[in-house]
Amino acid sequence: MHRAVPVLIILGLFLASAGQSAAEAPDGAGHGGPVVPVLLGLVVILVAAKVGGEIFERVGQPAVLGELLFGMLLGNLALFGFGGLELLRTSAGLEILAQLGVILLLFQVGLESNVSEMLSVGWSSLLVAVLGVIAPFFLGWGVSAWLLPGEETLAHVFIGATLAATSVGITARVLADLGKLSARESKIILGAAVIDDVLGLVILSVISGIIGAANTGGTLDAMDAFAIIAKAIAFLVGAILIGGWLSRRVFRLAGLLKVQGMLLALALAICFLLAYLADRIGLATIVGAFAAGLILDGVHFRDLGERTKHTIEELIHPIAGFLVPVFFVLMGVRVDLSTFTRTGVLGFAALLTLAAILGKMICAAGVVERGLDRVSVAVGMVPRGEVGLIFAGIGAQLQLHGRPVIVPAVFAAVVVMVIVTTLVTPPALKITLARGDRWKAKRKTPAPPPEAPMEGPKTRLG
Amino acid sequence: MHRAVPVLIILGLFLASAGQSAAEAPDGAGHGGPVVPVLLGLVVILVAAKVGGEIFERVGQPAVLGELLFGMLLGNLALFGFGGLELLRTSAGLEILAQLGVILLLFQVGLESNVSEMLSVGWSSLLVAVLGVIAPFFLGWGVSAWLLPGEETLAHVFIGATLAATSVGITARVLADLGKLSARESKIILGAAVIDDVLGLVILSVISGIIGAANTGGTLDAMDAFAIIAKAIAFLVGAILIGGWLSRRVFRLAGLLKVQGMLLALALAICFLLAYLADRIGLATIVGAFAAGLILDGVHFRDLGERTKHTIEELIHPIAGFLVPVFFVLMGVRVDLSTFTRTGVLGFAALLTLAAILGKMICAAGVVERGLDRVSVAVGMVPRGEVGLIFAGIGAQLQLHGRPVIVPAVFAAVVVMVIVTTLVTPPALKITLARGDRWKAKRKTPAPPPEAPMEGPKTRLG
Repeated sequence: MHRAVPVLIILGLFLASAGQSAAEAPDGAGHGGPVVPVLLGLVVILVAAKVGGEIFERVGQPAVLGELLFGMLLGNLALFGFGGLELLRTSAGLEILAQLGVILLLFQVGLESNVSEMLSVGWSSLLVAVLGVIAPFFLGWGVSAWLLPGEETLAHVFIGATLAATSVGITARVLADLGKLSARESKIILGAAVIDDVLGLVILSVISGIIGAANTGGTLDAMDAFAIIAKAIAFLVGAILIGGWLSRRVFRLAGLLKVQGMLLALALAICFLLAYLADRIGLATIVGAFAAGLILDGVHFRDLGERTKHTIEELIHPIAGFLVPVFFVLMGVRVDLSTFTRTGVLGFAALLTLAAILGKMICAAGVVERGLDRVSVAVGMVPRGEVGLIFAGIGAQLQLHGRPVIVPAVFAAVVVMVIVTTLVTPPALKITLARGDRWKAKRKTPAPPPEAPMEGPKTRLG
Repeated sequence: MHRAVPVLIILGLFLASAGQSAAEAPDGAGHGGPVVPVLLGLVVILVAAKVGGEIFERVGQPAVLGELLFGMLLGNLALFGFGGLELLRTSAGLEILAQLGVILLLFQVGLESNVSEMLSVGWSSLLVAVLGVIAPFFLGWGVSAWLLPGEETLAHVFIGATLAATSVGITARVLADLGKLSARESKIILGAAVIDDVLGLVILSVISGIIGAANTGGTLDAMDAFAIIAKAIAFLVGAILIGGWLSRRVFRLAGLLKVQGMLLALALAICFLLAYLADRIGLATIVGAFAAGLILDGVHFRDLGERTKHTIEELIHPIAGFLVPVFFVLMGVRVDLSTFTRTGVLGFAALLTLAAILGKMICAAGVVERGLDRVSVAVGMVPRGEVGLIFAGIGAQLQLHGRPVIVPAVFAAVVVMVIVTTLVTPPALKITLARGDRWKAKRKTPAPPPEAPMEGPKTRLG
């Protein structure tokens, strides 16, 4: 690190100055068309993502935090009198690449989730997940309603939703490092995180639908909300049942074909198709991508997968490795640090973070089995990550009566919440797990025998 | 195939109708922003690419021809009263993805080329390449000047340039199928094809530069043309020398880092950076991407590559597999079949194709060694592929006095030339190689001992 990071930083600064000269001479020598600024943006983003990721991994933090913070740095260079990177904020091409990145990320999450495993994790996971979604949702709503009385109710609801979904990757990493992945508590946390994702997507669908209805001037009653919930659930279940049946056939037929790259093309086509269809029926594209991942979860394409050298996961991995950092760096770029100078924004961020942490502590009540370390389960559910950011990003794009649902100051506060909840979890979890072990030893509950570390769901943060 | 292709075609038609409904209801239910039409376009493109590729591979033709023809089909559905896929022609997002695809394609070609091998193939390869570039260039210029007297001289020159570069993948495939890859003739062809690529890129740089100068009202003398040639060569040589030295250091430092995906991110960043810099100094982006591929050709990142599980080629492969077909399908989409109903366009296409074939036959004179099958060398150089299409695409984007350099009718003729030259090569090569073997046997020249088939440069057509 001592030698490499400075070189990469210098490279980044050089690129930044190249960007500035490009911004100053938009009608310069080139004739490469609209792709040229995108190329420059991608170079800056890729270098920033890896420098940021490296620094954070070195200090034991997930790389995605580094991508986010370096994005914030790039996005706010104008505060230091350097305005050359406006293209990161304004390029439609980069925005589309970022959106493809988040679609592929949710596709990966879906590929790693397993419907039958999800149904078998038991009541504790389900209760932990439901409590862990409801409590922060209402706490966030309350904080927003209290501190932002000028915003509309739907904006408060949306802010609540950004607090709902856990990003369990960092927890899985800490548990793995401590050799605790096979503990009962760990299994509850990992199971709850998957249910959590699905609940979060349903809430997002409902709120987006309600905002859409509000915009077209329609009034909203309980029936409409129920209809949206039904639609979201029907889409997920229908996609899994019909899509699973269809994709099984398509992949079996594709197994008869000769042309190269069929597995990758079909997987991407199904992912993009479901993302598109989800949007057409009024859900978020990421709901469709998640459903596509569930459908293609390693079962149905065995004939094709065994003939080719790579699995879908392996083929998607480099594409996601290219596009997903674009999303996170651009999320950081969107944070306008100057909003923090306004009165109340820092306080709002602090209270939102507190609501996010306290909300998840209520999860502890969801552990119905006895003799387990409930506090550690709750602490393990604290980190928010990609899902909170994705929700905030969608909220920033949604318009309610001509105004974004998530205004820039709120967006910045949500990013702070994501960063703080992720940073506090590893040390807190180490403390509570150690205390839990002492407590269990005192109660003379026989500790579970040490097993080989189980592979938990690998998410981007892990 | 009997069962799979119809299903995929039906799927394609279904998607096309979805596209129509989307086009009819642009303000529909969705709120996913600009990525939504891109998603639909990608699904249609991926399915079309694989259906087209499969059909052509089944009949022994390269998959890229199928992508091109299915693109033409999609792009001209409006002729049959079906206008739902206009988004393929108009989407800026798809255009950027296609451009990234062709940049990655040239990056791959560069990765597969090898500077020291290129320098060692000897005089025959160099002469074959130079003759094979100059002859079709002037023949194409002549055909254009004769049949299109209304166009400007620079347009004729550009049309000549689209005839210059060989796409040797299909030849390599035929030679491999016949077990002839280790023959001296094959090595001359493969060596010449790489030199050919470089010469083609230099010509493209020169002509683009001249057009740029003409547009800014400047007059052009031989000194300017010489300056552009010098710039192009200096860029390639400089990128290889300085870039090679720098990237060796960057990769050595990166080998000390911990974060995942460093190899992929660095390779992409270097590719995009050189593509960007090439554009800034007035060259085509693909020249920079090709140079980046040459730099990263398997030598300098050994420390990093051996630690990770994958090579750069393996990591780039899925990304290119996703984005490159977008380029070729969109190239097909751009062909306006209705131009062929205009008088003379089919005749122009036929003469252009003839010029392309005859021009490469002159290559035979470049084989300085005795006792070799010169006709087969010349026939092996006939197929044009991605490079001709790329040039035509760039010409369609370049404006000369407010008019595209390559007008739609000419673009369609170039695509016909690419398709015909690629289709005729395999049968013609089989015939000339068999005749050459009989001739060699008669001359009692000892045939080279059969060796294990050598791996030739794998290009997309191969």
